[in-house]
Amino acid sequence: MSMNSFGHLFRVSTWGESHGPALGATVDGCPPGVPIDEAMIQQWLDKRKPGQNKFTTQRREADEVKILSGVFEGQTTGTPVQLMIENTDQRSKDYGDIMDKFRPGHADITYWQKYGIRDYRGGGRSSARETAARVAAGGLAREAIKQLAPHVQITGYMVQMGPRKIDRDRFDWGQIEQNPFWTPDATAAEDWAVYLDELRRDGNSVGAVIEVVARGVPRGLGAPIYAKLDTDLAAAMMSINAVKAVEIGEGMAAAELTGEANADEIFMGPDGPEYSSNHAGGVLGGISTGQDVVVRFAVKPTSSILTTRRTITRSGEETQIITKGRHDPCVGIRAVPVGEAMMACVILDHLLLHRGQIGENRGHIG
Amino acid sequence: MSMNSFGHLFRVSTWGESHGPALGATVDGCPPGVPIDEAMIQQWLDKRKPGQNKFTTQRREADEVKILSGVFEGQTTGTPVQLMIENTDQRSKDYGDIMDKFRPGHADITYWQKYGIRDYRGGGRSSARETAARVAAGGLAREAIKQLAPHVQITGYMVQMGPRKIDRDRFDWGQIEQNPFWTPDATAAEDWAVYLDELRRDGNSVGAVIEVVARGVPRGLGAPIYAKLDTDLAAAMMSINAVKAVEIGEGMAAAELTGEANADEIFMGPDGPEYSSNHAGGVLGGISTGQDVVVRFAVKPTSSILTTRRTITRSGEETQIITKGRHDPCVGIRAVPVGEAMMACVILDHLLLHRGQIGENRGHIG
Amino acid sequence: MSMNSFGHLFRVSTWGESHGPALGATVDGCPPGVPIDEAMIQQWLDKRKPGQNKFTTQRREADEVKILSGVFEGQTTGTPVQLMIENTDQRSKDYGDIMDKFRPGHADITYWQKYGIRDYRGGGRSSARETAARVAAGGLAREAIKQLAPHVQITGYMVQMGPRKIDRDRFDWGQIEQNPFWTPDATAAEDWAVYLDELRRDGNSVGAVIEVVARGVPRGLGAPIYAKLDTDLAAAMMSINAVKAVEIGEGMAAAELTGEANADEIFMGPDGPEYSSNHAGGVLGGISTGQDVVVRFAVKPTSSILTTRRTITRSGEETQIITKGRHDPCVGIRAVPVGEAMMACVILDHLLLHRGQIGENRGHIG
Amino acid sequence: MSMNSFGHLFRVSTWGESHGPALGATVDGCPPGVPIDEAMIQQWLDKRKPGQNKFTTQRREADEVKILSGVFEGQTTGTPVQLMIENTDQRSKDYGDIMDKFRPGHADITYWQKYGIRDYRGGGRSSARETAARVAAGGLAREAIKQLAPHVQITGYMVQMGPRKIDRDRFDWGQIEQNPFWTPDATAAEDWAVYLDELRRDGNSVGAVIEVVARGVPRGLGAPIYAKLDTDLAAAMMSINAVKAVEIGEGMAAAELTGEANADEIFMGPDGPEYSSNHAGGVLGGISTGQDVVVRFAVKPTSSILTTRRTITRSGEETQIITKGRHDPCVGIRAVPVGEAMMACVILDHLLLHRGQIGENRGHIG
Repeated sequence: MSMNSFGHLFRVSTWGESHGPALGATVDGCPPGVPIDEAMIQQWLDKRKPGQNKFTTQRREADEVKILSGVFEGQTTGTPVQLMIENTDQRSKDYGDIMDKFRPGHADITYWQKYGIRDYRGGGRSSARETAARVAAGGLAREAIKQLAPHVQITGYMVQMGPRKIDRDRFDWGQIEQNPFWTPDATAAEDWAVYLDELRRDGNSVGAVIEVVARGVPRGLGAPIYAKLDTDLAAAMMSINAVKAVEIGEGMAAAELTGEANADEIFMGPDGPEYSSNHAGGVLGGISTGQDVVVRFAVKPTSSILTTRRTITRSGEETQIITKGRHDPCVGIRAVPVGEAMMACVILDHLLLHRGQIGENRGHIG
Repeated sequence: MSMNSFGHLFRVSTWGESHGPALGATVDGCPPGVPIDEAMIQQWLDKRKPGQNKFTTQRREADEVKILSGVFEGQTTGTPVQLMIENTDQRSKDYGDIMDKFRPGHADITYWQKYGIRDYRGGGRSSARETAARVAAGGLAREAIKQLAPHVQITGYMVQMGPRKIDRDRFDWGQIEQNPFWTPDATAAEDWAVYLDELRRDGNSVGAVIEVVARGVPRGLGAPIYAKLDTDLAAAMMSINAVKAVEIGEGMAAAELTGEANADEIFMGPDGPEYSSNHAGGVLGGISTGQDVVVRFAVKPTSSILTTRRTITRSGEETQIITKGRHDPCVGIRAVPVGEAMMACVILDHLLLHRGQIGENRGHIG
Repeated sequence: MSMNSFGHLFRVSTWGESHGPALGATVDGCPPGVPIDEAMIQQWLDKRKPGQNKFTTQRREADEVKILSGVFEGQTTGTPVQLMIENTDQRSKDYGDIMDKFRPGHADITYWQKYGIRDYRGGGRSSARETAARVAAGGLAREAIKQLAPHVQITGYMVQMGPRKIDRDRFDWGQIEQNPFWTPDATAAEDWAVYLDELRRDGNSVGAVIEVVARGVPRGLGAPIYAKLDTDLAAAMMSINAVKAVEIGEGMAAAELTGEANADEIFMGPDGPEYSSNHAGGVLGGISTGQDVVVRFAVKPTSSILTTRRTITRSGEETQIITKGRHDPCVGIRAVPVGEAMMACVILDHLLLHRGQIGENRGHIG
Repeated sequence: MSMNSFGHLFRVSTWGESHGPALGATVDGCPPGVPIDEAMIQQWLDKRKPGQNKFTTQRREADEVKILSGVFEGQTTGTPVQLMIENTDQRSKDYGDIMDKFRPGHADITYWQKYGIRDYRGGGRSSARETAARVAAGGLAREAIKQLAPHVQITGYMVQMGPRKIDRDRFDWGQIEQNPFWTPDATAAEDWAVYLDELRRDGNSVGAVIEVVARGVPRGLGAPIYAKLDTDLAAAMMSINAVKAVEIGEGMAAAELTGEANADEIFMGPDGPEYSSNHAGGVLGGISTGQDVVVRFAVKPTSSILTTRRTITRSGEETQIITKGRHDPCVGIRAVPVGEAMMACVILDHLLLHRGQIGENRGHIG
């Protein structure tokens, strides 16, 4: 019952602190025979890597992944894959001030209260750096998915920054790679650039909403009650630092609909059932319908800001804190590849689970 | 790796179908010496029980719980507690029509596609009746919590029905027990009664948002990364039938805040750290702060409605369906005690986990 | 992390006490579409049922199994199967004396010391009655195995009673069903009858060694390191009451062999690799070879005997105890169907796991 | 459900192959505040390290452990501890011959058949080198145990080599460190030296029996049915390469005893219950009694020997094999520290589990 692991059959255990020698992911249950090398994983780490533009922390990390086990002659062997990323740019001096003061909105205080010891450097285990290990594991998951379900495509993008939402009428898959915010709305990207630049200069930060879609997911993935596909997706996304909410399909808006408006009507298509709409977000009763699996999550603003905030010290004295150092004005940007990685891990896990439980879909229609 | 279980040390496995002989919960890991009898559990089942007013399904179920094991001379023994609820009012005739037709927005079609066989009577395993077993387990969890953390109070209530939200300025804990919607806003209750009655007469249904608060939760509950308190709460709530979104604290609204607005400032109170606000919903870095733990979830409208909807049959013919029978115009109402039960199970589980991992909080402040 | 469960994908959780209203098994992860009814399970319970001859306890239990969930129109649905056995012949009066005195060699004292409360009636949870639930689950597992690997045959038998071992030269599969000891050696059966009858009249008891063989097990079942087929078999057998040792293949005798004597040479048979011998017991590196899987376990003698033994009371006074009531002079006899059931559960679990992890054997030879 | 992990709350996941860049253990659930450094772990790795005398493989491995995470300023932080050991002396050329030929008695063939790919160099994942990671994790577990139960002492030793057993009358704890076989019987050590030297010169190998004793284990550790202390010990020991049998207390010999001879009578001692004997091996009903916990396991002889054996190639041709290279004539010797490490991990895991489930022993006697 690992506290730092997720997945049923494709099991990822992340380890490591922000300023320790290294961090990584121990990946157990990856099928054998998956072609993989470090470059195939590196591409996703590069997408998440900090310091790529003025909107992300200027910390310089190579984030170079090394495969230490489980791969032989370019293929996975079915044994545990150890993915290690060494920490290079540690600059601990930046963090001296937070050794004694707790940052409001940060895990500093709860880690201290629970454990009585914490690697305060850069947030230690609670740092967003932990997500690098998830992205590495997600990169492996993507390659394994290609073997099991080649039509699956997983794409994440930002749909809201602060109060500013995208216009769904301007949604363009082609735009996602064209702007620093991974947003499908080019106009929003321009607007957000100005907005975020201002916040950044003020040393402030802002939240965001990320949407991750998995297209081409086979019907029948998921399981009853507590290994539902949506349950596992909710846990996967909520486990990402700074995430405060998770939505499937209509999400919170489902509360506002009537049964008549919400129910996705069913037709017969050439390859089986099709639906008039996708309020369900591709999941009914915890099991995939074959429609796009749609997940959204809200990322809170970074708690490390340049504004003075009231806090206390370990010895209980009231004080104030300004978090200097290098931070993301909108961590949501770098949460995009992390959300994609979690989706990839959950989809692969359920592809394996489904095969184990059922073998193949059993119910034929038509 | 049970598909129908949840919890780490306090482990609940639910079983049973809507129209089988019985359903229940096998509860493993309940501490010994907890005073318990059937009446203490029954009170929570009665809160969830259908047919109590015109706003819930008219199906008549005694929902009488029987303790079959794990309790001796009025106390738990530390061995598995089997909680069984026999199904009495089955009236299968109501459900003949859905044997071949798939209800839009319902698990009928995904269960069929995955398993190739399903107990279609009343939705079988995907029926909301499964939640009766959770409520029974939650009743036991509440009694165990009294032994470990007597100050914990868990309360659920409805904060939104369809598009109609409560007014937080009218929030009154005392009102929650005074209306059929378990809402703290008396005015909203009157408004919703008229609104829902209309929907009910039209044979339509509507969604809702439930909020569950745990007060008096000790500091330090939770764990890093994938057994975070909020991760487990997200999974627990998302696993409830018809839930499409889960929020912790600010939830989706956290995306709209700046770092300055979102960070809860810290000062020293008589018993340790206190906070100027609770945007975090009582959880930082996956670990409880000692503030109220605040969770919200959105429940979609029942898919079983009297409006004609287009669908297909098992043999793939396009057809239409009207779901007759007895249904909830707003299943959100009965989701309130279910959300409370899930909160109780998760809190107890983390009380035990924390004791196992840490023994006692280790970090002292002041 | 259920303390009362076993299995990875085919997950069995047993519950219930010897003298409570009922006991049973919650079986999660059984594949859908397995033809099953109560009679198919009952046959195995009848094999284990007490009171069938003078060599087993005279307690009269119908041991009638009821299927409460997970089966619809004669087939499993893929949802949890609840198997319940009601306790009928409870005769608590027999057990009054052990309410305060701890039986030497029995779990009475450790349960008390750990939990501070125990259902002392008939040993409560530590009673051999718990194994009835395993046998029921094993009966279901056998039917599921027929669907996945029809050639698997699982047979248990007694190879030693007290110091008296069978003669392997007299091994006759046909004899196993012909004597009350399930032994393949007819001569041993006669000898043991006299020997055990004497012990029984003295109110004494004796241990035994059971061997369980699975024939026709496909190659490739198992997994590295900690879900090895032999690891899981060792845990499964050691979890049975009164078992003190588990052997795979040569078992303890493997220590006495040289590498030359122990290694099973390999040659090519018509259907692939064959072996000159089976010292390995059908498992190499935790993975099945396709040979017979051979497991043995030692069962200690019943601690409930008529001889006076020195012990203490709950209040710490030294005293003596004679355990009256109805007991098995050789519990090993009834452990045979239990060992078979555990083998069936483990084999099915690994058939499912293998399918999930690998899909199908990947390595071809020849 | 990691295939390469063990433990409930103290969870160890090993990774790595014999001839890959590195191997290690990801340890999750270690309590915070445990003083630890690399030297404290290295001492146990040195005990297991090959090439220390003529009776172990001449492969030269530094087996230097590096702590990559979870430790800050000399103490564990409660986050995952990554223990990495780099492979230095790989000499792959030794292993060219086994790329195509399967060694009889080795996992070569089953790994190939299951996975269709394997790192054949030095046995890859199935190499005894994997146990180095267990020993490292065990070293950490020993330090954590000191914090939770300071009186626990864990000692392993060899009690049998081939057919030659020690004389229990010559048992001397002081001798264990004085001979290359970790045996408490000095006379046996001399005898075995001659015996093994001869086998070594013949290029043959032999099996052994290891006994591991945990003294000072608190009463009440363990859990019912499937997380029994003895169940977990059986799984832990059987998971070690080449182990074919596990015994608790009397083990197989329990089968030969009568109930009268086997039951350990109970007295009242100054600190509570004491026992006249320890046939049970310190475990009753899966729960520790406070007596010595006694486990034995049989290790088969190395399958890599210089004698010609019949086997087949991947293409199915019959051939012969002689395994050259550097091997242990009696792997049992190096299994001693591995058995100790597994005992330490299981004891720590159950110390944490017990605290989580029960808090403290509840049942008082006297």
